[in-house]
Amino acid sequence: MMGGDQGIDVTASGVCLALNRHPDLSCTLVGDEPQIRTALKSVVDSDRVDIVHSSESVGMHESPASALRFKKDSSMRVALNLLGSGEVDACVSAGNTGALVATARFVLKTLSEIDRPAIISTLPRTHGHVYMLDLGANIDSAAELLMQFALMGESMVRTLEGIDHPSVGLLNVGSEEIKGSEVIKSANELLKESGVNYVGYVEGNDIFNGSVQLVVTDGFAGNIALKTSEGLAQMLIQVIREEFGRGLLTRIAALIAAPVLRSFKNRFDHRTYNGAVLLGLNGTVVKSHGNVDGLAFSHAIDTARLAAQKDLVGHIRHDLEASRVSLAKAAPL
Amino acid sequence: MMGGDQGIDVTASGVCLALNRHPDLSCTLVGDEPQIRTALKSVVDSDRVDIVHSSESVGMHESPASALRFKKDSSMRVALNLLGSGEVDACVSAGNTGALVATARFVLKTLSEIDRPAIISTLPRTHGHVYMLDLGANIDSAAELLMQFALMGESMVRTLEGIDHPSVGLLNVGSEEIKGSEVIKSANELLKESGVNYVGYVEGNDIFNGSVQLVVTDGFAGNIALKTSEGLAQMLIQVIREEFGRGLLTRIAALIAAPVLRSFKNRFDHRTYNGAVLLGLNGTVVKSHGNVDGLAFSHAIDTARLAAQKDLVGHIRHDLEASRVSLAKAAPL
Repeated sequence: MMGGDQGIDVTASGVCLALNRHPDLSCTLVGDEPQIRTALKSVVDSDRVDIVHSSESVGMHESPASALRFKKDSSMRVALNLLGSGEVDACVSAGNTGALVATARFVLKTLSEIDRPAIISTLPRTHGHVYMLDLGANIDSAAELLMQFALMGESMVRTLEGIDHPSVGLLNVGSEEIKGSEVIKSANELLKESGVNYVGYVEGNDIFNGSVQLVVTDGFAGNIALKTSEGLAQMLIQVIREEFGRGLLTRIAALIAAPVLRSFKNRFDHRTYNGAVLLGLNGTVVKSHGNVDGLAFSHAIDTARLAAQKDLVGHIRHDLEASRVSLAKAAPL
Repeated sequence: MMGGDQGIDVTASGVCLALNRHPDLSCTLVGDEPQIRTALKSVVDSDRVDIVHSSESVGMHESPASALRFKKDSSMRVALNLLGSGEVDACVSAGNTGALVATARFVLKTLSEIDRPAIISTLPRTHGHVYMLDLGANIDSAAELLMQFALMGESMVRTLEGIDHPSVGLLNVGSEEIKGSEVIKSANELLKESGVNYVGYVEGNDIFNGSVQLVVTDGFAGNIALKTSEGLAQMLIQVIREEFGRGLLTRIAALIAAPVLRSFKNRFDHRTYNGAVLLGLNGTVVKSHGNVDGLAFSHAIDTARLAAQKDLVGHIRHDLEASRVSLAKAAPL
């Protein structure tokens, strides 16, 4: 189920790919019904697809406040209402991130221990991947918020990866205790007492070297790290293509190396990692990149399906409650 | 001239490489004289090398305040004193960054228009490279500081690259005006009025796609972006090696593709980009990565030599003065 503000053809092709991949999946598409019907006709013919009409959509440059106040029949709002009322199990959107976070928070409400939702996603590593949050929902996060991110992220890694006590690092500009802002230093102290498997500060390069399974950071630095990685990976893939296209011999080498290069591209193509989860809400909301193709969008649907199947929200709710109880016991008033 | 806190053998081999590359270069090494003599013996025999003895060194985990107060005969302090008294033209250090910034600021003083020094370096792009600052000297930079970074960075790109009006972007989590913290929004307004060729907000991926020639950011986000890039590039180079090593056919492909892969590695190996400049001081100070080989260290020496030859500090001083005059004219009190 999705309110996609990208081209409807991309959404339709993503839905088609995901439905083919998962016989247990059904999708409700929200938006302009005639347009959706036209787009779907060419790609899918399935009784596992529903359409719910909505008359408006949130612009990519619209402010969250404006979306919340004036777009009560936007595809985004209607889709989140369906999730809130339990008619669907998860919601995927490629729309305006700020508006999605604000609307999801308004419609679904945050979990009782959580002040603000955070965006989490995986990034590729040599073997496997690493989770990182927040990726842009919160600018200027207080230490308590960073602590909440750690607890939610830990619960997600546990639920989806089956790792009981994933190692957690706090993103900083150095590994020494004296480094970082006052907020980072306070969060460091909170995390030491939190009961999570906290290994301390990590730096930007540690995201990819396997030091930790979960990286905690505020939304500003997290978004910079994520987008920097995407930009660099895209550039490197382009440069490899250029380098192999330089001469006859390199082109022959490229032919022989084609499976290797394809495997490399697939592993680090950011489309494979499309689909970030909004954590901390009473419901599973997945954010797809706005500017992607059907394949990437289908990966966001996969993420939503997995989170719903594994009852991610239920696990987070349970783990937060358990952590509150254990923290209260450790430090009675 | 350099006070290196890495292994003295690395420093010596870097000096040797740089001396061979530049017949006009001479180096003064600062540190434990007997150790330096031993290390130099095996790699260089040149009348272009001086040694100045110092009895202490600053530890990599020592606080800047402690280095400043208690290490008055550290290699770092002695080297900076030589720069301050004009006995050398530039200073290269692979030591503790915080201590280097604090000591350089104390010994050399900042330029009159500058509140705090910033660290600037280049990052590779598909064609050429991009400059970015601050990379970690200032955590929590105010808008006025970001504005100073932009002016100094512009002057550096102009001086070293010969680009009169380099395009400047402010690193943010989105390109829309409503995005970012209050500090970022204030800096955005200052930059619009500054006279620099300011194109507005850029995101992490824009660092590498050629949108701008200079990226301005605070030291926290800048350090995260830099280290994330280094970590990702290292991982990708390692994965390419692994992928090509998988089977017989891929190994043959790797042999044929060897020059391509080597060229790729050389272009994106972060050692090639070693040597960040501390801007805003009355003197040229270059920071080398702490954990590198001689080749990388020689690149840091190259950077120091170039900055000194082009009179980078003189140009920045001149440009800041000109910008102050023109800003004062634009907005008379």
